[in-house]
Amino acid sequence: MKIIGKIGKGKVEVNEKTKFSILLNNVAKKADIAEGKRAVEDIIRVIYRHQPISTKKIAQKTRLPLPIVAKVRTILEREKILKRTERGAELTDLGKEFAENFLKLKYKKSLTCKTCNGRGIVLDEFFEDILNKVRVWAKRRPLVDTTIDQSFATPETSTYRAALMYERGDLEGKRILFVGDDDLTSLPTALTNMAEEIAVVDIDERILKLIEKFSQKEGVKIKTIKHDLRNPLPQDLKERFDVISTDPPYTVDGLKLFLSRGIEALGKEGIAYLSYSHKPIDEWLSIQKAITNMGFVISELIPNFNYYEGSEIIANTTFIARLVGKNLKINIGDTEKIYTGLVKPVIRYYKCLKCGKIHKVGEEVKKVEDLVCECGGKKFKMIKREKLKNE
Amino acid sequence: MKIIGKIGKGKVEVNEKTKFSILLNNVAKKADIAEGKRAVEDIIRVIYRHQPISTKKIAQKTRLPLPIVAKVRTILEREKILKRTERGAELTDLGKEFAENFLKLKYKKSLTCKTCNGRGIVLDEFFEDILNKVRVWAKRRPLVDTTIDQSFATPETSTYRAALMYERGDLEGKRILFVGDDDLTSLPTALTNMAEEIAVVDIDERILKLIEKFSQKEGVKIKTIKHDLRNPLPQDLKERFDVISTDPPYTVDGLKLFLSRGIEALGKEGIAYLSYSHKPIDEWLSIQKAITNMGFVISELIPNFNYYEGSEIIANTTFIARLVGKNLKINIGDTEKIYTGLVKPVIRYYKCLKCGKIHKVGEEVKKVEDLVCECGGKKFKMIKREKLKNE
Repeated sequence: MKIIGKIGKGKVEVNEKTKFSILLNNVAKKADIAEGKRAVEDIIRVIYRHQPISTKKIAQKTRLPLPIVAKVRTILEREKILKRTERGAELTDLGKEFAENFLKLKYKKSLTCKTCNGRGIVLDEFFEDILNKVRVWAKRRPLVDTTIDQSFATPETSTYRAALMYERGDLEGKRILFVGDDDLTSLPTALTNMAEEIAVVDIDERILKLIEKFSQKEGVKIKTIKHDLRNPLPQDLKERFDVISTDPPYTVDGLKLFLSRGIEALGKEGIAYLSYSHKPIDEWLSIQKAITNMGFVISELIPNFNYYEGSEIIANTTFIARLVGKNLKINIGDTEKIYTGLVKPVIRYYKCLKCGKIHKVGEEVKKVEDLVCECGGKKFKMIKREKLKNE
Repeated sequence: MKIIGKIGKGKVEVNEKTKFSILLNNVAKKADIAEGKRAVEDIIRVIYRHQPISTKKIAQKTRLPLPIVAKVRTILEREKILKRTERGAELTDLGKEFAENFLKLKYKKSLTCKTCNGRGIVLDEFFEDILNKVRVWAKRRPLVDTTIDQSFATPETSTYRAALMYERGDLEGKRILFVGDDDLTSLPTALTNMAEEIAVVDIDERILKLIEKFSQKEGVKIKTIKHDLRNPLPQDLKERFDVISTDPPYTVDGLKLFLSRGIEALGKEGIAYLSYSHKPIDEWLSIQKAITNMGFVISELIPNFNYYEGSEIIANTTFIARLVGKNLKINIGDTEKIYTGLVKPVIRYYKCLKCGKIHKVGEEVKKVEDLVCECGGKKFKMIKREKLKNE
């Protein structure tokens, strides 16, 4: 909102406008977030339209990271703009004034299509049946390995991805490679029995074994290859695929690396489905420049397409983009900095569900999977996350 | 489809595969189109899924220009892959074999959401009422001036654009500039009574007069400014808007110019809604590079969002992209080459609806509006379009 020109009629209005303008600036400053005032405005608008609303839902609808939303919400509570009730965040009378008189909000309806949840496509019976099968298999997944930025998409998400590939003509008769597949998108894809060939490269043997068991049981064919993507693809995977699908680590170098391996698989041209986190503009801009420099065009970008299980603090919702490539060229950055934990080391605190003891994960113990409590407990819940400052 | 490796069991299959592969190559070569084999595959897939289907619908679903689709369809008819019935294009038995045995198509359902037609948003009652008003006003539009690439979006399209702006938080309390508005998107936007300020710059006085009449009659405020966008914006429009909306000429220079004028209006940061034609990859890539170089990020891109009236040959459906800008900088190319007619001069043939005489438009007579038949007829129908080769 650009504040320009005449400031209304009376003195009262001038004061209120100035007061709210200063308040907005202060909140943005205190929250210290890349998107500044716009993010604060977005959060207030979403609460105004959907209150009472949970912090997680605010994050989904604003496409802002959950910790940012939580921080802004706390500051807004202190400023008496918001109050927290059992059912979620609500605007106070002051907050309502702020929303209506200053931000000029008045209408509360959401126009997002309820049939498709804004994705633009829906599952028919055939894909619904596939989803039901995927749900069963997804329960057998191992625990996430956060050191390699694992974070599992919901079975619904992976099935919608397969449906989107079908709808756009990128599934029937096509050779498809999954560049990393902790999301198990190869499962619904294989269950369609539409692809000419499906292959998965992943560094995590646990994921590959699950996919192999699945293939055996369901009578489908998925080639699995254990491979560290920091190294070039094996020769027999090169230049033989029509389509690749990836949900890489959410760093610029992670994106460049995974897409480059995808390009090795595609050769000079092909289609890439990229799932990626909503990012602050500066980072977003480097990412889009990297994408176009590799020779990919963004032919479609659907926000809030992907939802994830478990670690909702890290990734609650991301977009999917369909990239069309011609004269593709690989572009690999610093392969040592691809995981977010390496860029910004993170300590996670887990609570033992048996005795309640708090454990640190991220220094000596690297993965929650390696954690065993002194009481013998093996189930934990993440309660806090902390970024370590880089030296 | 990459054709690799083993070619099946028997001799018959080898021959068929080879035959169809040669056929696909030949059709793509004869059609001489930028997207090559993929475009031909896309056309066959859309016919397979939706037959019988009109050429216009094929163009919409494949996002290919109508003349290209018509050309490929004619070649496919000659090759006995397609037949034309009263109800549209259908595959022959040979075509079905081609689709099922070679392209490996088998499933025919469309997963595009029928509620929102793939747009991801729907109009509620409030916006439906607005649409009904816009429909009435749209009937009063002048004839399109094709020398400045006019082509009117449907009232539904312009109302959906306003709805999208609302849904994304870019309407309430915002200052919005329409950089060119032959689509009359300012009308539904103003009817919401949500914006802080609405302004329109356009070179066509007829459009501005209609908007002025509308504002007077409907009691809304839209500032209209007659302006040739090849010149910088008037000083009092600079750096005062939060959001711009544009559907520029579909040339790289047209896009750069219109977005740059938008940046003058926004200042360092802001939101842009860009409607633009689905283009062949090479051109698309220059366009996306131009967008990111100006400092805009594509935060969302919805294909087939916009539909146009009348000149369906030129533009049947285009996408809308929501761009978010930070540290924006203008980037103006060759302002003399912004209109497609100047890049590739086009002759249009119009038939008088009274006497049937055919008239040429594009050389001496520049606009269909200037055309009067010797019989006195003033209503014409475009029947053919021809590109002149540039010297």
